[in-house]
Amino acid sequence: MTTRAELTEKIVAHKTYHGKKWVDVAAAVGQSKEWTTAALLGQLSLSKEQIAAASGALDLEFSEEEIALLMTPPYRGSLPTAVPTDPLIYRFYEITNVFGSTIKALIEEEFGDGIMSAIDFTMDIERSKDPKGDRVKVTLDGKFLPYKMY
Amino acid sequence: MTTRAELTEKIVAHKTYHGKKWVDVAAAVGQSKEWTTAALLGQLSLSKEQIAAASGALDLEFSEEEIALLMTPPYRGSLPTAVPTDPLIYRFYEITNVFGSTIKALIEEEFGDGIMSAIDFTMDIERSKDPKGDRVKVTLDGKFLPYKMY
Amino acid sequence: MTTRAELTEKIVAHKTYHGKKWVDVAAAVGQSKEWTTAALLGQLSLSKEQIAAASGALDLEFSEEEIALLMTPPYRGSLPTAVPTDPLIYRFYEITNVFGSTIKALIEEEFGDGIMSAIDFTMDIERSKDPKGDRVKVTLDGKFLPYKMY
Amino acid sequence: MTTRAELTEKIVAHKTYHGKKWVDVAAAVGQSKEWTTAALLGQLSLSKEQIAAASGALDLEFSEEEIALLMTPPYRGSLPTAVPTDPLIYRFYEITNVFGSTIKALIEEEFGDGIMSAIDFTMDIERSKDPKGDRVKVTLDGKFLPYKMY
Amino acid sequence: MTTRAELTEKIVAHKTYHGKKWVDVAAAVGQSKEWTTAALLGQLSLSKEQIAAASGALDLEFSEEEIALLMTPPYRGSLPTAVPTDPLIYRFYEITNVFGSTIKALIEEEFGDGIMSAIDFTMDIERSKDPKGDRVKVTLDGKFLPYKMY
Amino acid sequence: MTTRAELTEKIVAHKTYHGKKWVDVAAAVGQSKEWTTAALLGQLSLSKEQIAAASGALDLEFSEEEIALLMTPPYRGSLPTAVPTDPLIYRFYEITNVFGSTIKALIEEEFGDGIMSAIDFTMDIERSKDPKGDRVKVTLDGKFLPYKMY
Amino acid sequence: MTTRAELTEKIVAHKTYHGKKWVDVAAAVGQSKEWTTAALLGQLSLSKEQIAAASGALDLEFSEEEIALLMTPPYRGSLPTAVPTDPLIYRFYEITNVFGSTIKALIEEEFGDGIMSAIDFTMDIERSKDPKGDRVKVTLDGKFLPYKMY
Amino acid sequence: MTTRAELTEKIVAHKTYHGKKWVDVAAAVGQSKEWTTAALLGQLSLSKEQIAAASGALDLEFSEEEIALLMTPPYRGSLPTAVPTDPLIYRFYEITNVFGSTIKALIEEEFGDGIMSAIDFTMDIERSKDPKGDRVKVTLDGKFLPYKMY
Amino acid sequence: MTTRAELTEKIVAHKTYHGKKWVDVAAAVGQSKEWTTAALLGQLSLSKEQIAAASGALDLEFSEEEIALLMTPPYRGSLPTAVPTDPLIYRFYEITNVFGSTIKALIEEEFGDGIMSAIDFTMDIERSKDPKGDRVKVTLDGKFLPYKMY
Amino acid sequence: MTTRAELTEKIVAHKTYHGKKWVDVAAAVGQSKEWTTAALLGQLSLSKEQIAAASGALDLEFSEEEIALLMTPPYRGSLPTAVPTDPLIYRFYEITNVFGSTIKALIEEEFGDGIMSAIDFTMDIERSKDPKGDRVKVTLDGKFLPYKMY
Repeated sequence: MTTRAELTEKIVAHKTYHGKKWVDVAAAVGQSKEWTTAALLGQLSLSKEQIAAASGALDLEFSEEEIALLMTPPYRGSLPTAVPTDPLIYRFYEITNVFGSTIKALIEEEFGDGIMSAIDFTMDIERSKDPKGDRVKVTLDGKFLPYKMY
Repeated sequence: MTTRAELTEKIVAHKTYHGKKWVDVAAAVGQSKEWTTAALLGQLSLSKEQIAAASGALDLEFSEEEIALLMTPPYRGSLPTAVPTDPLIYRFYEITNVFGSTIKALIEEEFGDGIMSAIDFTMDIERSKDPKGDRVKVTLDGKFLPYKMY
Repeated sequence: MTTRAELTEKIVAHKTYHGKKWVDVAAAVGQSKEWTTAALLGQLSLSKEQIAAASGALDLEFSEEEIALLMTPPYRGSLPTAVPTDPLIYRFYEITNVFGSTIKALIEEEFGDGIMSAIDFTMDIERSKDPKGDRVKVTLDGKFLPYKMY
Repeated sequence: MTTRAELTEKIVAHKTYHGKKWVDVAAAVGQSKEWTTAALLGQLSLSKEQIAAASGALDLEFSEEEIALLMTPPYRGSLPTAVPTDPLIYRFYEITNVFGSTIKALIEEEFGDGIMSAIDFTMDIERSKDPKGDRVKVTLDGKFLPYKMY
Repeated sequence: MTTRAELTEKIVAHKTYHGKKWVDVAAAVGQSKEWTTAALLGQLSLSKEQIAAASGALDLEFSEEEIALLMTPPYRGSLPTAVPTDPLIYRFYEITNVFGSTIKALIEEEFGDGIMSAIDFTMDIERSKDPKGDRVKVTLDGKFLPYKMY
Repeated sequence: MTTRAELTEKIVAHKTYHGKKWVDVAAAVGQSKEWTTAALLGQLSLSKEQIAAASGALDLEFSEEEIALLMTPPYRGSLPTAVPTDPLIYRFYEITNVFGSTIKALIEEEFGDGIMSAIDFTMDIERSKDPKGDRVKVTLDGKFLPYKMY
Repeated sequence: MTTRAELTEKIVAHKTYHGKKWVDVAAAVGQSKEWTTAALLGQLSLSKEQIAAASGALDLEFSEEEIALLMTPPYRGSLPTAVPTDPLIYRFYEITNVFGSTIKALIEEEFGDGIMSAIDFTMDIERSKDPKGDRVKVTLDGKFLPYKMY
Repeated sequence: MTTRAELTEKIVAHKTYHGKKWVDVAAAVGQSKEWTTAALLGQLSLSKEQIAAASGALDLEFSEEEIALLMTPPYRGSLPTAVPTDPLIYRFYEITNVFGSTIKALIEEEFGDGIMSAIDFTMDIERSKDPKGDRVKVTLDGKFLPYKMY
Repeated sequence: MTTRAELTEKIVAHKTYHGKKWVDVAAAVGQSKEWTTAALLGQLSLSKEQIAAASGALDLEFSEEEIALLMTPPYRGSLPTAVPTDPLIYRFYEITNVFGSTIKALIEEEFGDGIMSAIDFTMDIERSKDPKGDRVKVTLDGKFLPYKMY
Repeated sequence: MTTRAELTEKIVAHKTYHGKKWVDVAAAVGQSKEWTTAALLGQLSLSKEQIAAASGALDLEFSEEEIALLMTPPYRGSLPTAVPTDPLIYRFYEITNVFGSTIKALIEEEFGDGIMSAIDFTMDIERSKDPKGDRVKVTLDGKFLPYKMY
């Protein structure tokens, strides 16, 4: 039996070998590059039509079993350890760990007691040109949900 | 002896009781609200002048020992556990855990192998109006650092 | 300095000694017994008026510093370990651990891919009479939040 | 050899591919959808008759080895880590972590010292219509077991 | 403020210094030595009358605050780490870890699928004389609770 | 290659499918049901004769490799996590965690400073009839080993 | 209240400052230096006479409360983390971790299935002269306890 | 591909089945039984000649791939968890945990500040006859390495 | 499917068996031995040309799938546990743990508040001859990155 | 009682407030800045003369108790968690985690099977000028210790 993790590895290996781009797959699927990449890496579920579009853009046939896996809402979590060891991903953990209390303080000052949704949420990853070295700009945009009184 | 953690609690309690705002303290200090809040919550070090400005804006005297603590680069980390338990901060951990492999894939597709710096880095937290409920917009902007060949 | 945890212990000890009831405090505060208890145990923040009402119902004066603590959105998390050791609380962890995949499967069958909010959420704890031994009935009622496509 | 975890994946993949519903399997088995789903996901054991009924409703033959696995009381626990990473399941962990002391305080105020059973226990998951967005309603109903004096 | 843990240490130190016995305290309290010791070590709650009886047998006055603590159902858990480091207590952890699957297999063979209650439960610790060295005999006696179908 | 864990699963599956009983296997082996079950579940080593007897009682041939595995003292430990997730086994962990300090206090009061052996040790699991619901009675009987002075 | 850990620090500090030796304290107590040091560091309990002898040899008065602590069998465990961070102690952990399977294989080859007792056990730490640099010789001598059949 | 762990299991199974002894393999290899067992269990690397000698003594051919594995310095660590679950190996962990501070205190009293090497180190495991039950004697003999000033 | 970890094992086994040297592979690849080894062990990504050069120097053909793996930026982290168990690697962890606060204090005294980059970073491992025993000299050279004010 | 950790904080606070430098304290003590800083931060023990010299250079009197603490070999370990959260120190952990297998491979290729000592070891932290931004150069220099055959 294929597991979802093995299917993710297969998609990534195929993509690397054939020089496909996430942005092109996303255009075919009709969603943002962030949503499409997350879905194909096993963090979101796709519809049959989206799977067909991705299949075309990647030039990769999926079996019935693989289509079933891509359609099923996955058990989410893309990291093998609670504290990530990959340096790129760790930097985001570090920001949460070091600046987490700051983020909390400023959101609460502006909005009152509540959270930023990680579900009704979009993410945008861009390159911004800079003469001292280009910069990564990650924008997280989530609905504020106040704690409910009852 | 006062610890840095106790000083943080004292500052926050004083601020809550007297209705002070991080944005006003930041204006007095002359840095962004994100930088200033992080510094006063014990994640960055302040100069003597910045401490004096914060003291005025908060209407709170600091002792010599407290000034020494605010000047010392702190042992960073603002969370008591590896996986944060506070729901607001957890959502950022969740984003890193669920979408970490997506962020890595997209930054590497755009920039090649490397990381986004969490040191040469700015953060901006804004409210964006939305008729379906206002949204929190967090922008993380860090220099891309490529892995060095040697 | 008083910490929020010490204030929680003080409130609970006072309440036990004087035989006060959470339901009566809640009636004075004007919120449900679940919300009021959670707030006084340090998981939600109270307004000045709610603090005054609770103070009267508990027959317990709060100092300015304690009022400041009760007003501040707390760093949430009421348990000292990742897996709770208290048998009553452990049973709820056990339900999540053993039946978590069942809950996920049934919510996704009914609603599609998404989560039940733990913020826009109410909880109700009731006694239901039963000749074989009374039963605890806990109802969790949260808004369904679908994953957003973008 | 097939493991119980692999059998769970096989059942779920078959169900997704053929568009079967847990509620229909449950009707055939003659138990609630919550009990039936938990059993087929490897958290409860089934009788030979229940297995035959599920097999029919799912349109899926089980081998003798698979029947043996479905009949054996499993080593329970449906999550790969102590703190769940899947956002849907995490929200229930969050409720236990943040509101655990509240649940304990209110059950003890009403019933005295003891626990809510997680064995003599039923669970009900429903959709409740709401114009602001439908809600998930999870009802946990367990026998109160007082600590025994002896 | 006194915490429950400090009160436990105070009771144990007083008992050691004055050579009091748990069995005598238990006789005064009118419960078994196992129940009484667990209660005074902070794992069960006592009534006012039981506290008065224990106070007499130990020759130790309790303040109002201490009485409140002894009356409150405690947050249970008597060990500082998930795996106990004390050799005496570790041996019981070892039995659970090494023979846990055996205990499960034999209870399920005899009773069907379910658990032994740890709440409706008594424990008895005895010395049994043996010429090769006396033996400790620990008897755990708990109600069998079958998993409920519904 | 077969691992010891896979052999355990094979024995258990065969036993379930053919409706064999641990008590009957134990009678053939000539040891208690507790010892025999623990040995076949991979926690104790068996002699060639005991393996032959078990093989007959289970109606299950073992290969030479499997016999070698059954003869080798295993790396013991029957649980996949430090804190067990299976509810039946967890209840014994809970007893150790909650009542560990009580067990320690009472053994030390009776015997002085030392431990109960978990090696020179027998375990007995029985059903005791009770009109309010049958009870599980687990008796642990281990030699007391005093700390040695030297 | 003094805790056992604080008493340990007090004894060690006093000993360092006054240049006392564990071997001399042991001679006064009438036990080996290994046993005596372990007892005073809070891992074994002392009798009143042993406490008096240690008090004389250390030139340090103990209060009644401190005597009570020294008499009570302690909750054992002398390290703050599961994996020791102190390099001297870590090397013994490393030996257990790296050579544990070797130790197990050789003891079982010589004695059959069982353990070396860590209770009926003596330890001897000696210096052995060596021209290439003196060596530490640690001898662990424990009774072999075979697994019991029953 | 064979892993080093699988090769270890193969060697042990072969040895058990054919009744080979570590002491005889060690004699053929020309090193102590402790060193030889550790090497074949995957904690030390062997030369081509030592592998040939072991192969002869065990009556077991190694493939080229297996010889390569036996020649490579392994990633050391012979236990699957940070705290060992096997009772025989746990007793050595317990000694380190309970008596670690004692070992540290006595080595530092005798040698000054430094460590006992776990690399320039020999281990000797012997049986010592004792009428009360034979004893295991483990001698650890390592070079003392003082902390360097510079 | 081959995983990156399996490919690493294959490269290492081939290298050991054929007596190849990392320094020679590095010369062919045209990078330092540190960079080249890290890349082939799965911590850095290689270009097609570098893979061809390594293939020649190792005398080892790579399949298309293996080339794809070597080209993909890997999920970094070369250790199976948070605290390394291999003694050679542990010594570097020990230096970080014991001397981490010293390194921090001295870098901050010299440079102000910031970090040493582990990305814009080179490492050099050399042998330095010493009559008392040769020494390993590891030089870590990373760009200082100051915390940014904004 | 003062603990060693509190003394470390006191020394650091005093040093920050009075603008003292570790390099000047080291010059007075007559050891390198790395050794001296580590000693005063509680990772190495000092002699009476070194303490007197440090006291002078810091302009800070030590009490007898504090001198005793500075003279005692400390329980080493300068980090509060197994994985450091401070970004500066984390980068060194990251190097160990990501490049640990590389360091091991290259040391073993050059020296054979063994370790680099972390005790007979010196560390040197320097600034190297660089037009693209100054660099931190950390040199670790430790004796190679081969695994001993015996």
